[in-house]
Amino acid sequence: MAISTKPPSGMRDFLPAELARRRYVVNTIQQTYEKYGFVPVETPSIENLSTLLGKYGDEGDQLLFRILHRRDKLARALESAEVGEKDLSDLGLRYDLTVPLARLIANNPELPKFFKRYQIQPVWRADRPGRGRFREFWQCDVDITGSKSLIAEAEVCSAVAEVLLTLGFSNFEIHLNHRQLLKCLIKAAGIALDSEAQTLVAVDKLDKIGLEGVEKELEQRGINQTQTQALLNLIQRPCGIDETGELQRLKEALSGDAEATAAIAQLGELCKLLDSSKASGHYSVDASLARGLGYYTGPIFEIRSSDFSGSLGGGGRYDGLIGMFKGSEIPAVGFSIGFERLLLVLEEKGLFGKIDCGPDVVICHFDDVADSAVIEAANSMREHGVKVEIFPETPKLGKQIGYAESIGVTWVAIMGASEAAEKVLSLKNLASGEQHTLSYQDAATRILNK
Amino acid sequence: MAISTKPPSGMRDFLPAELARRRYVVNTIQQTYEKYGFVPVETPSIENLSTLLGKYGDEGDQLLFRILHRRDKLARALESAEVGEKDLSDLGLRYDLTVPLARLIANNPELPKFFKRYQIQPVWRADRPGRGRFREFWQCDVDITGSKSLIAEAEVCSAVAEVLLTLGFSNFEIHLNHRQLLKCLIKAAGIALDSEAQTLVAVDKLDKIGLEGVEKELEQRGINQTQTQALLNLIQRPCGIDETGELQRLKEALSGDAEATAAIAQLGELCKLLDSSKASGHYSVDASLARGLGYYTGPIFEIRSSDFSGSLGGGGRYDGLIGMFKGSEIPAVGFSIGFERLLLVLEEKGLFGKIDCGPDVVICHFDDVADSAVIEAANSMREHGVKVEIFPETPKLGKQIGYAESIGVTWVAIMGASEAAEKVLSLKNLASGEQHTLSYQDAATRILNK
Repeated sequence: MAISTKPPSGMRDFLPAELARRRYVVNTIQQTYEKYGFVPVETPSIENLSTLLGKYGDEGDQLLFRILHRRDKLARALESAEVGEKDLSDLGLRYDLTVPLARLIANNPELPKFFKRYQIQPVWRADRPGRGRFREFWQCDVDITGSKSLIAEAEVCSAVAEVLLTLGFSNFEIHLNHRQLLKCLIKAAGIALDSEAQTLVAVDKLDKIGLEGVEKELEQRGINQTQTQALLNLIQRPCGIDETGELQRLKEALSGDAEATAAIAQLGELCKLLDSSKASGHYSVDASLARGLGYYTGPIFEIRSSDFSGSLGGGGRYDGLIGMFKGSEIPAVGFSIGFERLLLVLEEKGLFGKIDCGPDVVICHFDDVADSAVIEAANSMREHGVKVEIFPETPKLGKQIGYAESIGVTWVAIMGASEAAEKVLSLKNLASGEQHTLSYQDAATRILNK
Repeated sequence: MAISTKPPSGMRDFLPAELARRRYVVNTIQQTYEKYGFVPVETPSIENLSTLLGKYGDEGDQLLFRILHRRDKLARALESAEVGEKDLSDLGLRYDLTVPLARLIANNPELPKFFKRYQIQPVWRADRPGRGRFREFWQCDVDITGSKSLIAEAEVCSAVAEVLLTLGFSNFEIHLNHRQLLKCLIKAAGIALDSEAQTLVAVDKLDKIGLEGVEKELEQRGINQTQTQALLNLIQRPCGIDETGELQRLKEALSGDAEATAAIAQLGELCKLLDSSKASGHYSVDASLARGLGYYTGPIFEIRSSDFSGSLGGGGRYDGLIGMFKGSEIPAVGFSIGFERLLLVLEEKGLFGKIDCGPDVVICHFDDVADSAVIEAANSMREHGVKVEIFPETPKLGKQIGYAESIGVTWVAIMGASEAAEKVLSLKNLASGEQHTLSYQDAATRILNK
């Protein structure tokens, strides 16, 4: 009986054409991030559960992939009376790139005071797979640690905006809000502080479940109708109002609240910085933006587009997280691009040009030519920079050329006994049909010039 | 209490300078493989245990990282009377790149008949960590499926040799042997066929434990002294003998054995092909080479170097493995480079040149300059291709320049109020001390020309 050949649920194989598109996007992201002075790090796929647990909320903890103990450790665990999940594992798979960064910063005190790092790696979540939702997927993060300056916020927003623009995608807006402002808005709506986290979770779904959905959720979470209406009035931006107007509206609604005033001033300053950046014309203040994760402490961001329901990425300031590992506080701000979603949008909008993948030429040969002569010809062309595949066997020429056509290559180089004797190739363009007898080097030059 | 900040045992964080070296090697490998017409694939980190188990021998199965069941599935498993490893998991982490390739080939019948793929991804093994030995490490594989032609063997050997030579490393030799030849040698030594696998395992350790060690192992495995001596005499190459002489010696020792004669003829033909390839001068016939894994069926290879004890990579022909997934047989041959070991050798031999990493310039600014003006200057230089970091705060200039020096950057660009007013920068070379006032564009040009 043959074994199943499919990848597990939510996991994917990437074949060459798709991988070429993914690499093209990764390269664009890398080059853009490096222009901003970000440097790369990578962290291990497996982390201690003590690093991961308690950082992503209860739901996040549930979605962690855990590594089963082995040998003696497993045997000992199974001997005890009441065996549970926590006895069977102390390692888990990376769930995001922010918590590992916080651990890494704490573990490497020799790193520069302002550490601008980017990281592009897969993460794993045992979520229900769906359209654009996988159990192994890639994240592309930029973070700046060590500074509370708003320049840090402006730089990560500018870098992310430049990535999207460079990929040819301009129909997006970075929504901006501030966690302190949100807190003040919740307070101003008369909602008790101990319901803040619950309220944020409900408001975070506005995009997905709409106004009525949020009303219902808030009711279920014990927020009364008056409070709910007050909050929804506060966080909804009136039509036709510009950034200055919206900031003014919020300022008036929360006048007298010093914390709110400070947060609004920060948002105003950030807008001014973004006007000088690549995010200019691609941002808007959105007091309803909540972001799910608990660790944000200042400005928060999310990329929205009418071409995609949901967010294409997000981030914000989290001044407390590194301190959970280090003991002393280190401020930080970051932005993460949802790689699979971005790919989906680029594909749907037809923003991938022709991406080369595979050999430039296939060498077809007859069985009266020594294989060593074929290898010599191939390596000679490779030395000139051509990607060469050798047809490994010698069936009839038509079959060899048929194979070359089937893999979409433009050129074939034919070697019979007479060509081999003279160290030349009969180079044929499969698109135009033109054919010339050329030295290995001239054949290479012709192929590279198209 | 702060949480532990170290990665788990056998796992590593990669900081920018080390990651830059790793990427340089990966890029060299990719570019070389692509010149040979190989195309990339990637497979998921998590595979079904049914895919992995029984392919790597008992020891391999023991070293798999298994994923713990979750929720209901875990609860149900823990309810049963005798709970064991197999009840708690049906997923495991990728252990090598060959078995996933075999699954992928079987799962994608639309792939070209001759599929030349390369794959560079991490694998995980719960091995005891040691020098150059990790629990998460990278493999770089090339494989050609669909052909029994020796051109396939020659192409993978040539590609791997070219990788090493391109990296500046020439002190290596690809040892060649043939599984059928080994089998005939074992038979000729009088060892029973059902001890073949055991014998191969012992011989495979020759490199590590020496002749005496192998003698002892063989004795423990029930091979008598006469047989052991006969085998060791057969597989050891006499001093000062060339490839032709060694093949002749083996042919004579096994004369009359048709299978041996065919295998020796194949090795002879392969040597001829390698003479026309990049592996020319970098191979030798070695009848003592065994390779641990059970699935090889034809020629086998291993990279050895006097600069490294142990193997830097290896491979061979495995015509049966894909059939385990597909039901019908598809021949295949592959070669895998041990990435971490290669890196270790390159480092020890000083073969890494200066690899750039990090920004070209840090912008230092005074607090009477608007942050938006600084961002504008940065983005202008970035548009010309310069990697620019903005110092995010405005302490005294000496402190800002000190930071730039500490991260090893060559240039700083200083912006005071007068520079900002005229949209210029005071560009200073930290190595030479020279300083010029330049427009953003001229500063960019100066930096890029060094």
